[in-house]
Amino acid sequence: MIGGDAAGMSAASQARRRRSVDELEIIAFEKSGWVSYSACGEPYHVAGLVDPIDALVARTPDQFAARDIDVRLHHEVMEIDVEKGHALVIDHRSGQRSTTGYDDLMIATGTDAATPDIEGSHLAGVHILRTLDDAISLRAAADDGPGTVVIVGGGYIGLETAEAFVERGWQTWMLTSGASVLTSTIDTDMGNDVVAAMLAMGIEVRTGERIRCFEGAAGRVGAVACGDDIIPTDIVVMGVGSRPVVTLAEGAGIPLGSTGAIAVDDHQRTSIDGVWSAGDCAEAFHRITEQAVNLHLGTIANKAGRVAGINLGGGEASFPGVLGTIITRVGSTEVAATGIRISEAAGSGFDAVEGTATGTTIAGYMPGAAPMKIRVVAEKHTTRLLGAQIVGGPGSGKRIDVFAAALWNEMTAAELAWADLSYAPPFSGTWDLIHIAARKAAETAV
Amino acid sequence: MIGGDAAGMSAASQARRRRSVDELEIIAFEKSGWVSYSACGEPYHVAGLVDPIDALVARTPDQFAARDIDVRLHHEVMEIDVEKGHALVIDHRSGQRSTTGYDDLMIATGTDAATPDIEGSHLAGVHILRTLDDAISLRAAADDGPGTVVIVGGGYIGLETAEAFVERGWQTWMLTSGASVLTSTIDTDMGNDVVAAMLAMGIEVRTGERIRCFEGAAGRVGAVACGDDIIPTDIVVMGVGSRPVVTLAEGAGIPLGSTGAIAVDDHQRTSIDGVWSAGDCAEAFHRITEQAVNLHLGTIANKAGRVAGINLGGGEASFPGVLGTIITRVGSTEVAATGIRISEAAGSGFDAVEGTATGTTIAGYMPGAAPMKIRVVAEKHTTRLLGAQIVGGPGSGKRIDVFAAALWNEMTAAELAWADLSYAPPFSGTWDLIHIAARKAAETAV
Repeated sequence: MIGGDAAGMSAASQARRRRSVDELEIIAFEKSGWVSYSACGEPYHVAGLVDPIDALVARTPDQFAARDIDVRLHHEVMEIDVEKGHALVIDHRSGQRSTTGYDDLMIATGTDAATPDIEGSHLAGVHILRTLDDAISLRAAADDGPGTVVIVGGGYIGLETAEAFVERGWQTWMLTSGASVLTSTIDTDMGNDVVAAMLAMGIEVRTGERIRCFEGAAGRVGAVACGDDIIPTDIVVMGVGSRPVVTLAEGAGIPLGSTGAIAVDDHQRTSIDGVWSAGDCAEAFHRITEQAVNLHLGTIANKAGRVAGINLGGGEASFPGVLGTIITRVGSTEVAATGIRISEAAGSGFDAVEGTATGTTIAGYMPGAAPMKIRVVAEKHTTRLLGAQIVGGPGSGKRIDVFAAALWNEMTAAELAWADLSYAPPFSGTWDLIHIAARKAAETAV
Repeated sequence: MIGGDAAGMSAASQARRRRSVDELEIIAFEKSGWVSYSACGEPYHVAGLVDPIDALVARTPDQFAARDIDVRLHHEVMEIDVEKGHALVIDHRSGQRSTTGYDDLMIATGTDAATPDIEGSHLAGVHILRTLDDAISLRAAADDGPGTVVIVGGGYIGLETAEAFVERGWQTWMLTSGASVLTSTIDTDMGNDVVAAMLAMGIEVRTGERIRCFEGAAGRVGAVACGDDIIPTDIVVMGVGSRPVVTLAEGAGIPLGSTGAIAVDDHQRTSIDGVWSAGDCAEAFHRITEQAVNLHLGTIANKAGRVAGINLGGGEASFPGVLGTIITRVGSTEVAATGIRISEAAGSGFDAVEGTATGTTIAGYMPGAAPMKIRVVAEKHTTRLLGAQIVGGPGSGKRIDVFAAALWNEMTAAELAWADLSYAPPFSGTWDLIHIAARKAAETAV
């Protein structure tokens, strides 16, 4: 296993469940000092909600060792020879290089943070948030505050980091080049509802901003120059996306797909015999577009890793594909999406319509009722569900899973509009907003 | 329209949307002084969370009048002549009787509270909670407290009323003859998890109790005799179920179904030409058992009323059936179910298995993570989903809708175990407990 996080270690565990160490020796090389951790939990460590950092570690190397899975931390695979079936490994603590032979090789190298070429990016005080080590460093910075933080990028990590800092009393800026936040998964107007909620929380959001440079003194960041402004700041957090780590695979001649990530079949096999891949560095099949995608989500990494591990262990499993379902929150505002947006429909060969409903999370007369908006995308004529987006108060986000289950089964909006969903005043209106949005989409579609 | 609540007034609204008053005159006779109200919200009025009582009224008679829907409060239909097409109506305020002719008649007479024959049931201080008038009376009693209340019956109304009283500082007893609470929808062990939560809230729950009688002095209840105990109390709330009101229909020769409720087809037509029925007094088709059921749920009444109204208005709609999806809460413990339990499977012709998973509502390391248990019932071999039950902390209950959408599409547990559900630490584990319970059921099924 190259890479010891979600995909790699899920695979290792599943393979071990099916084959004992006498049948299958499992070695996992991990470049960092951590395995099997929840990267998604990192913003909540920075926020001070999750302590200590070890709480984010699902299983330690010792726990894997007890199951005869040999985890080697600080070991980086430098080169793979798929003809000879061996890997060149460097132990970063000792500097020693060695070669390890394999029968099967799994590449689960994950992602790198995309680091745009901005002058001053390497100043002290400019953070990213990807690994646990990044989280430890950013938490230490947060503990030093409160002060001023500028978050660059309006994706999930950016939003979750903004929540962490503003709730710790920091003056918090978010600068994003996009027309709104979360532009890769929700429509601009839905994103603007999130922006409005962030502004109300005291986060200074500026969209459509181009960072000119980070300014500093004595090697430490002191301000962000964007547009005509100079924003003085104590720290910067760069949350501008992630890229699959594929250089090792590319070097070994393992084919990449159209997305630039490693191409795999539904058993997580690459086209090179005995070489497998799963997780953020690999492609996945999108059930709506029927195209390969490369999404960096823990859900996909865990499932694809599990599939690879079952197959490596002599079982039989197929990865059934993804819908790109996501969820996040900023303060009490929840955001979720699944499937595709209307803007993506034509490119996937769909003639699509949409229906949008606004209402409340629970019965409008109940204390705690909060606004909620649901948008449903459906195929014209057939009303087949293609996607959904939700922005709203507590309890709204997880409703996306109803759409995920519906999309999984190629349910139509017309059917969902009548489905027997649950109702009680502390949970929804008599007609859930899911029904109403589905009905609107269905009425528009026919 | 006979009956002016969810089913009747949904039908009236839908019919009016399609036909103007020149084409279709709509008269709704309502026995009580209220129309179109949320009975499900009543416990929250008693709790003092929803005020004034009018907040529970979706539309007033004046609002209906503005849409040319003639609502006649305090008017009870005493007799129907389906041959002549007329109804004998009494105005309870004036005592006047009159006859109204109709082209189409819709019976939406709802339910009566089941009142078991317990000595002392008619003492002052013994309440039921069905109509808004009942809610007003019980709220007045609650405002007089705190004191001691004995709730008889462990169904939804009982639980919600118990929550209302205990949170208002009353010493609260719940006595139920069942082996646990909510025995008509969840398994005993799941019910016992709810009982444990209720006990922890300070509600004195006693299961398997037979009430001997209500004791009183000067015409007012003072104690409940059950088993060998006498429990002194200030008030009693009877929540022992409800029965469809069908005497009027029966008297007119309109056929009832095997459940004792009015038999209807999927257009909400009875077998008598021009006579329709919907809501708590009518049957509904259960999509899993493929049998007629009579469930008293606002969701069904609203949908069936809508179907009737579309058809009455000259449109075309079919009621697609129900799954019996329900949700409720008691304090911070949420309970939900859909489909059937394993104990009901054989009677419906299914060879079934179940899988149960316990975990947390959100990532275990997050503050606020609460226990959650999900049980999945699936058909043997095929793993087709047949039902699910959930008991857990905040955020657990509405997960039932994922199962409802899945059951609607005859999804299998094996498929659901891999579905692309959403994940972020404030919302679930990487594998939602839905996945894990579905996987357990699927593994047991094959």
